[in-house]
Amino acid sequence: MTFEYSLTHPLLSENVPRWDAEHDVVIVGFGAAGASAAIEAVQAGADTLVIERASGYGGTSALSGGEIYLGGSGGTPAQRQAGFTDSTEDLYRYLMMAGGRDADEARVRLYAEESLAHHDWLVAQGVKYKNTFLPERMVEPVTDDCLIWSGSEEAWPFSAQAKPCPRGHTPQWTGWGGGQLLMKVLGERALALGAAVRYDTRVLALIVDAEGAVCGTVVRSAGQTAYIRARQAVILCAGGFAMNRDMVRRHAPQLLRSGEPIGSPGDDGSGILMGMSVGGAAIHMNEAFVTLPFYGPESLIKGIFVNERGQRFINEDCYHGRVGYHALQQLGDRIFLLVDQATYQEPAEFTRIGIAAAGETWEEVERDLSLPAGTLTATVETYNRHARNGVDPLFNKAAQWLKPLDEPPFVALDCRVDYAFYSHFTLGGLDTLPTGQVLTEQREPVPRLFAAGRTACGLPRWGGGYSSGLSLADSTFFGRQAGRHAAASARRG
Amino acid sequence: MTFEYSLTHPLLSENVPRWDAEHDVVIVGFGAAGASAAIEAVQAGADTLVIERASGYGGTSALSGGEIYLGGSGGTPAQRQAGFTDSTEDLYRYLMMAGGRDADEARVRLYAEESLAHHDWLVAQGVKYKNTFLPERMVEPVTDDCLIWSGSEEAWPFSAQAKPCPRGHTPQWTGWGGGQLLMKVLGERALALGAAVRYDTRVLALIVDAEGAVCGTVVRSAGQTAYIRARQAVILCAGGFAMNRDMVRRHAPQLLRSGEPIGSPGDDGSGILMGMSVGGAAIHMNEAFVTLPFYGPESLIKGIFVNERGQRFINEDCYHGRVGYHALQQLGDRIFLLVDQATYQEPAEFTRIGIAAAGETWEEVERDLSLPAGTLTATVETYNRHARNGVDPLFNKAAQWLKPLDEPPFVALDCRVDYAFYSHFTLGGLDTLPTGQVLTEQREPVPRLFAAGRTACGLPRWGGGYSSGLSLADSTFFGRQAGRHAAASARRG
Repeated sequence: MTFEYSLTHPLLSENVPRWDAEHDVVIVGFGAAGASAAIEAVQAGADTLVIERASGYGGTSALSGGEIYLGGSGGTPAQRQAGFTDSTEDLYRYLMMAGGRDADEARVRLYAEESLAHHDWLVAQGVKYKNTFLPERMVEPVTDDCLIWSGSEEAWPFSAQAKPCPRGHTPQWTGWGGGQLLMKVLGERALALGAAVRYDTRVLALIVDAEGAVCGTVVRSAGQTAYIRARQAVILCAGGFAMNRDMVRRHAPQLLRSGEPIGSPGDDGSGILMGMSVGGAAIHMNEAFVTLPFYGPESLIKGIFVNERGQRFINEDCYHGRVGYHALQQLGDRIFLLVDQATYQEPAEFTRIGIAAAGETWEEVERDLSLPAGTLTATVETYNRHARNGVDPLFNKAAQWLKPLDEPPFVALDCRVDYAFYSHFTLGGLDTLPTGQVLTEQREPVPRLFAAGRTACGLPRWGGGYSSGLSLADSTFFGRQAGRHAAASARRG
Repeated sequence: MTFEYSLTHPLLSENVPRWDAEHDVVIVGFGAAGASAAIEAVQAGADTLVIERASGYGGTSALSGGEIYLGGSGGTPAQRQAGFTDSTEDLYRYLMMAGGRDADEARVRLYAEESLAHHDWLVAQGVKYKNTFLPERMVEPVTDDCLIWSGSEEAWPFSAQAKPCPRGHTPQWTGWGGGQLLMKVLGERALALGAAVRYDTRVLALIVDAEGAVCGTVVRSAGQTAYIRARQAVILCAGGFAMNRDMVRRHAPQLLRSGEPIGSPGDDGSGILMGMSVGGAAIHMNEAFVTLPFYGPESLIKGIFVNERGQRFINEDCYHGRVGYHALQQLGDRIFLLVDQATYQEPAEFTRIGIAAAGETWEEVERDLSLPAGTLTATVETYNRHARNGVDPLFNKAAQWLKPLDEPPFVALDCRVDYAFYSHFTLGGLDTLPTGQVLTEQREPVPRLFAAGRTACGLPRWGGGYSSGLSLADSTFFGRQAGRHAAASARRG
């Protein structure tokens, strides 16, 4: 008799032919969430195994900028050095707004209160921050500087509810890609503390006992199937599902408009699927971070975005991911960024933002774009008239970014959704408690199953509120929570 | 020893203490999908039980207008009598657009080809259609007439891709609420054919065998728990989840902006939860039909909708549910419908659309609404200028609805999302084959489990494409498919 199992169907423990290995805590995935979980689990005394399908630690976290969203409690060293006092309440309010209509109050509260301590923990693990501040708007530093404005803190409506403070902390690493450094620190730390690891190993299914408690994983490595027992818990830290285009189609089909998923091959939804296979609920599966990283050059923020009806749709000074979210909500693919001679600078090459039209008058640009007469021109006229008074009554763009677009030649930059670089990753995932424990759709815990990182639906859960550094903040902090609570869960005989 | 089970955790058959009853096919829910499934299952020779938690058949279908989206194959009697020839390809193309980016091609193809036969089947069951056509735009007939324009067929972009044809078929019933008639016919028919029924009975959980095949249900009635074996299959026809506001919060939080869910208490997601409990995938859980049924009076279609920046956002001649979908995509709650003296008529009372401002000039209205100077007025100016030429270059509203809004007094009707009647129900549900068989996230069938109606994600799966009658078309047609295929599934010992 053979017993079926798959990512979507767990193996019953009574049908396990043998246990090839046993550990207290088994962690699936060795990115930032998995490494953070491992560090805490080992330090809590648990015999911990990390299973990773690639040949080394890193995952999608290692492909990132390594930026982490940190603050509160009066401010991190970098914030204080730059003259900012960041209150826990302001961080809390910002994160509640960033989470959207279903922001997880308990999770946000915990993170706001412990974010500064989390910063100190990261430093204690070996993450280095230069603690310098770069006030200009950018995707991430190309220098080894630390602190940047990485969200919509200074932008309406966030600025009206929470005192703005920069919170994006990038490791001391020259050039983009500080995630490599972050993962080297966290990965090596987990190993040095004694976490066991199996690389080049794929998890095929979860194993559950007769009561539905998770008690192990079926894995495959070098052509061999092995059954690994988890005496205490399994933690799923296996990434999101941006690379599984079938899952994207069924849950977030608007992302198919962009051909630029961010992730590693591991972001195939397998962690989410395994969690669902034992009753875990996947929530907000339509939500994603989608961005056209149009700045820097930051002078482009002084331009105005319009859709194919010549209408503005967002305050351009908000985070580029919020612009991207709203760009995808417009009817039609054509999106333009309007600038004049004074504000134009060449967009970064990777953004694939070219010039759609240029002219000595906005009428000429409107005509060149084949926009209905009087649409784009009326939009620019209204914007300029108010910008001269330092206000933007439509979207409350902050005064520092308001400049009448009245110096010819005028340019419409081509930001069409089906061509420019709208990159994305998924925010939907398993519903969890702040402890990391996976919940069913009725919010009952699935016994002995935890999840963190993009396998879970965490702090970031709404595309309109995403800010750089939120995903790694969530992955590292709530990865730690999962590791600690998994290690503390009652041991089974 | 006790064995746990719940909506989110099936009972293993080995732990069933006794079988209180046995049937070939067990159907959960006696609305349109359940009744249609029962009729087919019984006629295919299956001993069929329908379990309903209310005291009679009907469900949410009985609360509806009873309208069914039918056509193709040259046209139904009502279509042909009104002079329309409806081709299968036009119906197919319309339904593919209506399904959005993840329209289910196989399902749409099957329905387009068999829709006329389905009409004849409905008539054969006893549904009466007067076959008269009402050309004016309305939510549903208050008379006992039959055929209406119930979607966006005549509106851009649908009209550009599929030849328009009215397809909303309402039973011969005077006043709103033809769903009562529809359900009386289908419910009585199922009973007359010999379907067994248990009313006032709640399904607590599914029962699965050791291989994961669904083989029964645990039910509760009059304080007693019973175990009902399904020799062949279980069909979940238990409605959507609009009434489960926690589920709405986790999957479609934008719906919380509206306090008007459409449904019966049974639309609590229990069918979807049970399907997920045995590995079924729930897809497009964020999608919903959301509408402000602003017409009739149809002259209001000649008005223009603007958001709180005075921008138009949709061609007002499309289906009111498509207007509602786009209204909810606007930043901010304030939505206005602008009309002039020639186009104003009093909105229906239930819509809670009042007058926000009125004036002798549009400048006055703009000022009264505290909209930024030059926004609403520019929008009206552009619209009027083009309307005089019979075109709408922004949204391609059809010429018959274009009239310059230039006859004072001018009125802004208040359609704010947080006050007016934006009613909604959910479109997300279990992924199924056209046979009704429930699929896992990897699109493997869950053995012996079927679903139909709003427990499944069917023909309608995108708020921007919904049309009246699509949900009942899907429920009745694919309910039948599920009944037939469940009855034909191999009998187990």
